[in-house]
Order: sequence, then C-alpha cells, then structure tokens
Amino acid sequence: MRRIASRDNPHYKALKRLCESGRERRKSGRLLLDGMHLIEAYGRQVGMPEEILISDSGAGRPEIAGYLASASAAGTITVLADALFGDLATVDTPSGIMAVVTRPQAANALDYDADAVLLDGLQDAGNVGSILRSAAAAGFRQVLLSVDCAQAWSPKTLRAAMGAHFHLDLHEGCDLAGFLGAYRGQGVATALGASVSLYAANLEGAVAWVFGSEGLGVRPPVLAATRLQLHIPMPGATESLNVAAAAAICLFETLRRRQS
Amino acid sequence: MRRIASRDNPHYKALKRLCESGRERRKSGRLLLDGMHLIEAYGRQVGMPEEILISDSGAGRPEIAGYLASASAAGTITVLADALFGDLATVDTPSGIMAVVTRPQAANALDYDADAVLLDGLQDAGNVGSILRSAAAAGFRQVLLSVDCAQAWSPKTLRAAMGAHFHLDLHEGCDLAGFLGAYRGQGVATALGASVSLYAANLEGAVAWVFGSEGLGVRPPVLAATRLQLHIPMPGATESLNVAAAAAICLFETLRRRQS
Repeated sequence: MRRIASRDNPHYKALKRLCESGRERRKSGRLLLDGMHLIEAYGRQVGMPEEILISDSGAGRPEIAGYLASASAAGTITVLADALFGDLATVDTPSGIMAVVTRPQAANALDYDADAVLLDGLQDAGNVGSILRSAAAAGFRQVLLSVDCAQAWSPKTLRAAMGAHFHLDLHEGCDLAGFLGAYRGQGVATALGASVSLYAANLEGAVAWVFGSEGLGVRPPVLAATRLQLHIPMPGATESLNVAAAAAICLFETLRRRQS
Repeated sequence: MRRIASRDNPHYKALKRLCESGRERRKSGRLLLDGMHLIEAYGRQVGMPEEILISDSGAGRPEIAGYLASASAAGTITVLADALFGDLATVDTPSGIMAVVTRPQAANALDYDADAVLLDGLQDAGNVGSILRSAAAAGFRQVLLSVDCAQAWSPKTLRAAMGAHFHLDLHEGCDLAGFLGAYRGQGVATALGASVSLYAANLEGAVAWVFGSEGLGVRPPVLAATRLQLHIPMPGATESLNVAAAAAICLFETLRRRQS
C-alpha cells in the first residue's frame, strides 16, 4: 500500500488525466469509478479493479474497510491525502473510495433486429446517465450515442447511471442515421409537432427510440431516418419535458404494451 | 442604468446573498432568475421584473438587446462586469441576463380534493426541477415539498424546471403525512417491494403522488399515510430508476388512463 500526498507525484498526475480527459480514457482503455456502489456493480458484472484509491479519511469508514478486507478488492491499493482525493472526486462530499478499471467493451456488435436507444447530441451527462439507467431497468440492452453526444464513460454520466453501464452494450461515436437506414425494426422519435400520440402509436416489434439534444431535439437527417414520429400528450400549461423524463415515459410505455 | 465593477459594492453583495441563500430569498420575498427563458416565462405568467442585471458582454447580444428595448423590460437595469456576473450565474456559460423578481405565492391554498405531487426529502435540486416540469406538463397544479426537501426556488431548481414554477401552486415546508391524512383522493407512493404493479393499479379519482429521496425513498410515516403502494415493473437487469424518471412515468401513466 502506497500513499501519495503531493500533486506533483507522476502517478497522481496520471490519475487526474484519467479523471478529466475523455481522450485519455479512450487511449488507455481505462476509467475511474467513484464510490462503493459503482465499484461493486462493476465487480458483479465485469471483474476486479486494477487499482483501488482511498482517501485518508475514507480508510476509516467501516463500509470501505469491509470492502478492502474482502476477496473482491484486488489490485494495488493507493491511499491519497484527502485534498488530493477531493480533486479527483466528482461529488462535493467525497465517497472516500475510487477504482481504476478496464473500460468494458460492448459484449455484442450492433444488432439491426434488436431494440435500441439512440442518443443524438445530448449535452448533459446527467441526462445521458439517467437515460442509461432507465434503459437498463426497462430491459433495453443496446444504446448508441452520436459523435457529439455527452460521453458515456465520464465520471458524471457514470454517477447518474448508477451501474447501468455494466448491463448495457454501449456504442459511442455512431452514425445514427446510418444505423436507422439499415435497421429492420421501427425507428421512432418524439417531435413536438408530430400528429401521432405516444398512446395511440403502433409500437409492435423491435423499436429503436431516438432522443435528441436538450435544446434542439433530434436533428433533421436523423429524424428523417425514423419510420415514426410521435408526441407525448401534454395537457398541462407547459409543453416541455426534460429529455430524460421523456425517455423514461417512452421506454416504459413500450414495456407496458408488451406486458399487457 | 448603473454599472457595478466592484465586489465590495453593497448592492452587489445583496444580489450575491439573494443568489446563494434560501433564507435571504424567503426573508426578502424575492429571487433571481437566470437567463432569457425564465425571465420571459415569468413575464408571461406573473409580471414585470423589479430589476434586470446584464453582464458587459451580455449587453451586446441581439436577444438581450431586443428584450431590453421591449415593453416587457421594466425596472432598473444594472450592468455588471463579466466576472461579477459570472459569480452570480448558475451555469458555466453565463446567460448574460438575470432578473430580480418578487417570488410568486401559490395562487390557491392546499386542496384536499385535487391532484397533487408530494416530494419527500429529495436532495437533488435538478431532480426537483425536472419533476416540477413533468408535473406542469402532465396537468398537475399542486405540489407540496417536505421541510427538508431541496428548495423549490433555488437557482438550480429554477433552471431545471424551465419555467414550470410559474404554472404551479408550490407549497414548501409541508407536513406530508398530515396532508395525506386529510386528503380525500388517493395517496399513492412507489415502493420497490410493493406487490401491485403501476400498470394494474386503480388510479381513478384524484391522486396525490408521493416521491421520496434519492437514497432512501419515501419515509415510513409518509408511506404509512398513503392508501396505495405500487412498483414500476422493471424486467431489465437493474431495478433502479432516477426519481425524476420514476415520477415522469407515474404522472404520465395517470394521464394516459384519463385520456383512454
């Protein structure tokens, strides 16, 4: 067990790059998981961490001490001074434990016959994470993200998805219109002006749901590649939903139809 | 039109307190709206702002200049140096315009016969804002927040709700179990272990939906005061939804029943 107390430590600098840079994560094939919940979810679905980082004060917490004493805690253990740990942490109240892990690859190649969730240029990592979580809960497995979408494996997305990442086949940097062109199920997007209501729409067979960016929605070339555009009925005073809320409504309406 | 360039300016200090302190907002009955979208929503639903704040660089943007030239832009106009404006702003890319406004009061008193949304100890302002937005879109009007819930009128909640606040009757600091005890409709909460499925539940009549905190769910005394507990079916690999996603699913399922 080693301890790092200086920001100039080369290993600490490498950890900081991994935390802050999507490019570094792609290049190295590794990423940082913050908090016991994510580390345990990774352990159950993927495997052992490469390295465990704990803060001075985290080392004393029973939950963390218990984990370190268990067989699941493989790899090097590095203790970081609280201030250094805090600089890597993604939350204001640091969890006290992080892990460096190998970034999982999608277990399956793109499947043009299976259900899918397509994210077109979403800007907010919290929204992407929430949609991944809803997708995994609703039984969707395949998720495609456009080139300019918020990163799937950033600390903020990971935190919002609460471990859903490890149950999904995530494909980043995708050509969504291209996928929809070859898709053998039904591509479906929500669009405010569409005449068909979600509740009246035909959602039989495999569905590829497309959700667009917070400000602009689904881009025209992607929208044009869908087979069905529909709207979520909003009888209230506003006609506006957060994209993660809209996605939850659509994914679970698909599920409800299949169950009834 | 005055310009402030010093952090020691007494008026700037008062604005900063209004931005940062819920207590100051309650005491003064005023709040800060950040960005054109919120200011326009307030203008349509409530009235004129008391004071408009623009940043040096915001003053040059066509959208802001157009608004300042319109009849809607009442009140004092104060120009802030960019750095000072940035310190008040709630987003990394400052909008360039804020407004000091009177905090709207709920237009109606608590109604024990009408639909309601009850938020029990939610911690995340973004989740509270997203739920307010979904509630307004689904046609709910009355929202009650428990004493320890994230504040309804904080800058972060306002930003996430995108103007929904001004279409709702918001009641903060409520005794949720007390409200449910006197409620003449049906109090309903989601609970992971509940046997009734959302899709099989009887949701007829007025409904008071209760959503609980991110980590712990609805607290036992509040849960005990509901008439129905149900679960959202999750056939996927995880049984976990973001609370704002769960709320969107429940509120729009209520709506779907009424429309069909």
